[in-house]
Amino acid sequence: MMAFRHVAIIGLGLIGSSVARATRRALPEVRITGHDADAGVRETAARIGLADAICETAGEAVRGADLVMLCVPVGAMAAAAGGIADDLAADVVITDVGGSKESVLAALRGVLPDAVIVPGHPVAGTEYSGPEAGFATLFRGRWCILTPEEASDPAPVARLRAFWEALGANVEIMTPRHHDLVLAVTSHVPHLIAYSIVGTASDLEEVTQSEVIKFSAGGFRDFTRIAASDPTMWRDVFLNNREAVLEILQRLTEDVTMLQRAIRWGDGDTLFDLFTRTRAIRRSIIAQGQDDAAADFGRSHGETGNAASDSMLTR
Amino acid sequence: MMAFRHVAIIGLGLIGSSVARATRRALPEVRITGHDADAGVRETAARIGLADAICETAGEAVRGADLVMLCVPVGAMAAAAGGIADDLAADVVITDVGGSKESVLAALRGVLPDAVIVPGHPVAGTEYSGPEAGFATLFRGRWCILTPEEASDPAPVARLRAFWEALGANVEIMTPRHHDLVLAVTSHVPHLIAYSIVGTASDLEEVTQSEVIKFSAGGFRDFTRIAASDPTMWRDVFLNNREAVLEILQRLTEDVTMLQRAIRWGDGDTLFDLFTRTRAIRRSIIAQGQDDAAADFGRSHGETGNAASDSMLTR
Repeated sequence: MMAFRHVAIIGLGLIGSSVARATRRALPEVRITGHDADAGVRETAARIGLADAICETAGEAVRGADLVMLCVPVGAMAAAAGGIADDLAADVVITDVGGSKESVLAALRGVLPDAVIVPGHPVAGTEYSGPEAGFATLFRGRWCILTPEEASDPAPVARLRAFWEALGANVEIMTPRHHDLVLAVTSHVPHLIAYSIVGTASDLEEVTQSEVIKFSAGGFRDFTRIAASDPTMWRDVFLNNREAVLEILQRLTEDVTMLQRAIRWGDGDTLFDLFTRTRAIRRSIIAQGQDDAAADFGRSHGETGNAASDSMLTR
Repeated sequence: MMAFRHVAIIGLGLIGSSVARATRRALPEVRITGHDADAGVRETAARIGLADAICETAGEAVRGADLVMLCVPVGAMAAAAGGIADDLAADVVITDVGGSKESVLAALRGVLPDAVIVPGHPVAGTEYSGPEAGFATLFRGRWCILTPEEASDPAPVARLRAFWEALGANVEIMTPRHHDLVLAVTSHVPHLIAYSIVGTASDLEEVTQSEVIKFSAGGFRDFTRIAASDPTMWRDVFLNNREAVLEILQRLTEDVTMLQRAIRWGDGDTLFDLFTRTRAIRRSIIAQGQDDAAADFGRSHGETGNAASDSMLTR
């Protein structure tokens, strides 16, 4: 199977810059060109040597590329595709890394009706943004979901799968619709709730913001990590995966209401049963390598905290 | 000020065993006795040498102690106090580590009307339970809240403050009522939502549990850590801090409903404004040493993941 010779990355934030770094490390023979709409980001990317060339225009960046990866917020996909339409090589495969897939596929198809498009979504990230936040191992052991159209030629899908696997990811293929529902559960609604709870806490009159920060080790701080993620990216995800997010949110609201009722009526058994069931999920996530077993996320507790946490790894 | 000579720890789980370890390290001259209602826990505690003596009965453990710390779930406080009432020394200070304070104070007062009681709550923990999960540095840099009664003698409060400070904690004093509201925001409601969202995700028909686990790196896994916390302890917290939890939950529900509406109506500005505001809270938590700045909680991303994360520490 033909590998890609030249990858063009449009959008050089956390994900785009991680793709660049991972590609350089895993596939050093591949030419990497990049572009970002923000001049400051281009400057930083050039300074840190993120790609073989950081181009002033997206069109310039994609010229001659056989893989174009759009790493922009999902609300900017159509514009990004429009900016490269005239400069694409005949044999190019277009992909993206957007967090919603039905809307992105529709947006890209609208602008590039005849292109070979294989939408993708690497399920990985951190709470930091920008070209300096990326790192080569971000995708290692994580899953990348590809959502080709039903009538899609299998060859470009296979090439893109091989590319992501070279970067260390596991690849799964599903329909855009199923992707959007799965991600609503595993990512979008958790982010929305995290944003919401951090907002609620900072709006209280009786509890000061300083108290919320001081006593955040009681659990709150775990929510603040994902509530610090890139605002533009996440606004776009919610606006573009509306249906699935609203469906999952509705279910969650019902379940929270049930717990609220259990608390009000002193129904300890309902609480205990749920709290017992949820431990098993955590164990499976650790067993499958999707999280670390270190207690408290391996946070340092003074100078010997990590040593103490290390002893948890075996349980 | 007189330090404590002999600390009796009733309940040898994560917190009790961490108090034992921290005391032995910071105050090696203090005698430590311990008891747990569970024979298996007593056996483990004796085997790992958690205290100078692990006693068969709580009464035996508290005999001669000048500090008794009740480290049992808040629903078991009254029974624990009842089990030691006849064996307490005249000069003893009674404290606890429970996550709700109004109900615990009432429970302890009911059983020990004339004792010197200074309720406490170290805001620290991990998702692991049991005597082997504890470690000496758990409280270092974390806050411990003391909630003495208004008419309380200041001397025992000062001694208990000094004790917690010796264990590495910062101490804050507030009313039981205010504690319960602050913790409802910073700990109880976050835990309830985490439990709930993990439950909701595992109940879906269209998304399999295996998919939820696979793609948990999208954000979901951050919730599973605290949703793996001790079920008995947390059931009791919710049943005993009912009012404050229901109040905060009501506010959160309103705020989530507003976001739900913003998504339904495509109101990107409301989403963007909230998502921007919440980043500042995360920064403050890191600045005040209540969380680590390492990207993605410093999780390992392959062999160089931690090195990459380390570079985040300076931003």
